[in-house]
Amino acid sequence: MNKTYISDAGRFEGQDVTVNGWLYNKRSSGKLWFLLVRDGTGLIQAVVSKADVPEESFAACERATQESSLSVSGRIAPDKRAPGGYELQVKSVVLHQTALDYPITPKEHGTPFLMDNRHLWLRSSRQTAILRIRHEIIRAIRDFFDSNGFTLVDAPVFTPAACEGTTTLFETQYFDEKAFLTQSGQLYMEAAAMALGKVYCFGPTFRAEKSKTRRHLTEFWMVEPEVAYADLDDDMALAENFLSAVVGRVLETRKEELKTLERDTAPLEKITPPFPRISYDEAAKMLKEKGVAFEYGTDLGGTDETVISEAFEKPVMVHRYPAEVKAFYMKNDPSDPSKALCVDVLAPEGIGEVIGGGQREDDLETLLAKIKKHGLPEQAFDWYLDLRKYGSVPHSGFGLGIERTVGWICGLPHVRETIPFPRMLNRLKP
Amino acid sequence: MNKTYISDAGRFEGQDVTVNGWLYNKRSSGKLWFLLVRDGTGLIQAVVSKADVPEESFAACERATQESSLSVSGRIAPDKRAPGGYELQVKSVVLHQTALDYPITPKEHGTPFLMDNRHLWLRSSRQTAILRIRHEIIRAIRDFFDSNGFTLVDAPVFTPAACEGTTTLFETQYFDEKAFLTQSGQLYMEAAAMALGKVYCFGPTFRAEKSKTRRHLTEFWMVEPEVAYADLDDDMALAENFLSAVVGRVLETRKEELKTLERDTAPLEKITPPFPRISYDEAAKMLKEKGVAFEYGTDLGGTDETVISEAFEKPVMVHRYPAEVKAFYMKNDPSDPSKALCVDVLAPEGIGEVIGGGQREDDLETLLAKIKKHGLPEQAFDWYLDLRKYGSVPHSGFGLGIERTVGWICGLPHVRETIPFPRMLNRLKP
Repeated sequence: MNKTYISDAGRFEGQDVTVNGWLYNKRSSGKLWFLLVRDGTGLIQAVVSKADVPEESFAACERATQESSLSVSGRIAPDKRAPGGYELQVKSVVLHQTALDYPITPKEHGTPFLMDNRHLWLRSSRQTAILRIRHEIIRAIRDFFDSNGFTLVDAPVFTPAACEGTTTLFETQYFDEKAFLTQSGQLYMEAAAMALGKVYCFGPTFRAEKSKTRRHLTEFWMVEPEVAYADLDDDMALAENFLSAVVGRVLETRKEELKTLERDTAPLEKITPPFPRISYDEAAKMLKEKGVAFEYGTDLGGTDETVISEAFEKPVMVHRYPAEVKAFYMKNDPSDPSKALCVDVLAPEGIGEVIGGGQREDDLETLLAKIKKHGLPEQAFDWYLDLRKYGSVPHSGFGLGIERTVGWICGLPHVRETIPFPRMLNRLKP
Repeated sequence: MNKTYISDAGRFEGQDVTVNGWLYNKRSSGKLWFLLVRDGTGLIQAVVSKADVPEESFAACERATQESSLSVSGRIAPDKRAPGGYELQVKSVVLHQTALDYPITPKEHGTPFLMDNRHLWLRSSRQTAILRIRHEIIRAIRDFFDSNGFTLVDAPVFTPAACEGTTTLFETQYFDEKAFLTQSGQLYMEAAAMALGKVYCFGPTFRAEKSKTRRHLTEFWMVEPEVAYADLDDDMALAENFLSAVVGRVLETRKEELKTLERDTAPLEKITPPFPRISYDEAAKMLKEKGVAFEYGTDLGGTDETVISEAFEKPVMVHRYPAEVKAFYMKNDPSDPSKALCVDVLAPEGIGEVIGGGQREDDLETLLAKIKKHGLPEQAFDWYLDLRKYGSVPHSGFGLGIERTVGWICGLPHVRETIPFPRMLNRLKP
């Protein structure tokens, strides 16, 4: 008999097939069992009539518990009321392993309990929907860059020096040296952009965040494009086209999953280029007008970002922050050197920053002065300085945090459900 | 004037465009300069005639050195002898930054010097060709799984316990605990396969290899598919279809890069399913016949793998090794419990193992006994054991090392050129 995945059941209408899966739920009606079976691709209702199956099959239905593994064989028949549009008219049931006292029951569980059982929690419809959307977001990101002439250049995880400060670094003994786990692949992407023109890296990055917030993980994935011969305007155009393409893809291909999550898709449908662009000065003015206690000259905090992003239906691109509050590698605005040619993209619905980027300092002497001013060890950056000695060009890029993006698109209040096995303060297992 | 990348020059035949790039090489012929310009997408010859350009443009050609950044504007004209098929008849040249004493000259350099200058070495045609093929291999891998119903499930890098031994683990302080950097996402993929049916992870993995060999990096990328309701035969079928699809894609789309690397593609064209399958016992017999000093019952070493792989034109799948030499999670062969239901795929041309995998032990008591026998801390595996308590099913998977695969397909003798920024013993920079 043909095996099929539930998502392909429609191709076998009227035929006999076997579905291998797990029992999601069941109910009985005397001489009938209704088994709701999941196989990772979907759910199907399997109808077992005592009259139509061997005795041991019917007994298997009695014994089968939530999450027991089983194979159900029978005919695929259309059923408009069924999830997926088909049901299975069962001819035999084989129970493989009986799950006793599966810990996650239909009743409500607390988050710590569910996180402790993350390896099982992943089986719930809500979690599989999130994982499938995460998969689609990652695929859409790669497709966007790959189809726009970018080359993937994986950045290293082990780095000899810190890109931005050292307080949140994870450290490891690397034979006779110390190594730090990367917080960003940007510096490496700058080198790669000089070789390949348009590049991106996409991998895990690490931050020893001691704060417990809904936005922070110690291990999170980031995609970082970098383009040679591109200025801040090019960078913003890239960011808005990119983000719109990613949101558009999820809307197009993951309707079912968004429905499972009860995500209102109306706000997502508005994510199309161009995005509004406001300067830091305009953002500061906006905060003042809204009565937010904000000190001009400082970085925007989480609350400030929320307030600003709530004022727009689309992601808003806030550019030209004070150079003082931004990293050493940012290029100063020639028309106002107190400002950096940077941009943060704040997602709407109060989400806040999902993208940070900008134009990089490309002048050797200026960059050297900045490294000294920031008190960074010059010799750790010798190779990075080489990029300004040998064919320096204007270049720009940005980083997008995957988990915040997944959280935004899925409409989740906390990033902990946006990654299969989250790592946070107090959370290293499973 | 339109900007163009060199790879798109053909679209602008007869038109005036600007190419932004770097000087790869130049030669003069009195009143003519021939500039060979690269921009990361290709090379184009720019012909500068003293009569046709402003004086400062011609002077810029004189001053331009290897890897100086410059923009050349002019008309795109077909030229059959030119790389790419077009040349640029220049109307103006703008020199952005003059590279003085670029360290990598056309003369031969030693490998340590090139590795120290990896951030610049990436600009050579050979290295960009390798990086583009690496990009294509990774894309082909993802396309294969994505189009075959797999869901990407990223495995964590921080893990509380070791999957296979502890001697080659990198350790980090994780707040009040110790964490280890992952060596494999497999255990997590087993959990995810029970949720989503077919899954894969794809990320960096870490091994504190003290040995300096041509096959080892401390940080390398691995893709690991895992399938629920799949046995060893299914696993081998998946491996041969997968590997054939990846090699086929590179042959189809990266002819130019393979030519740059002077890779003989004839051996790669033979990589189609089915692959030969031999048991460990047959492999041992083969080694004996070839006069290799090999002790029956031990694992195959690098040399053994080379000898076996050289005997086949296609990758050879060696299955059913002694259970003793394989990891605790391997299922024993019911028809000969001294053997594990595992498979190693050895690439031809003497490359050796690129894939290792097999069917996982799915019986709770057997698995528990194996964990004890291997002296592993049972409580570290409590969540993993849950997978056998709650709906255990036969399942299989494998891991493919990206760098070895890139090395094989590109025909490189050493893995150090297969990853943008290699990490090895004594190599943490740049």
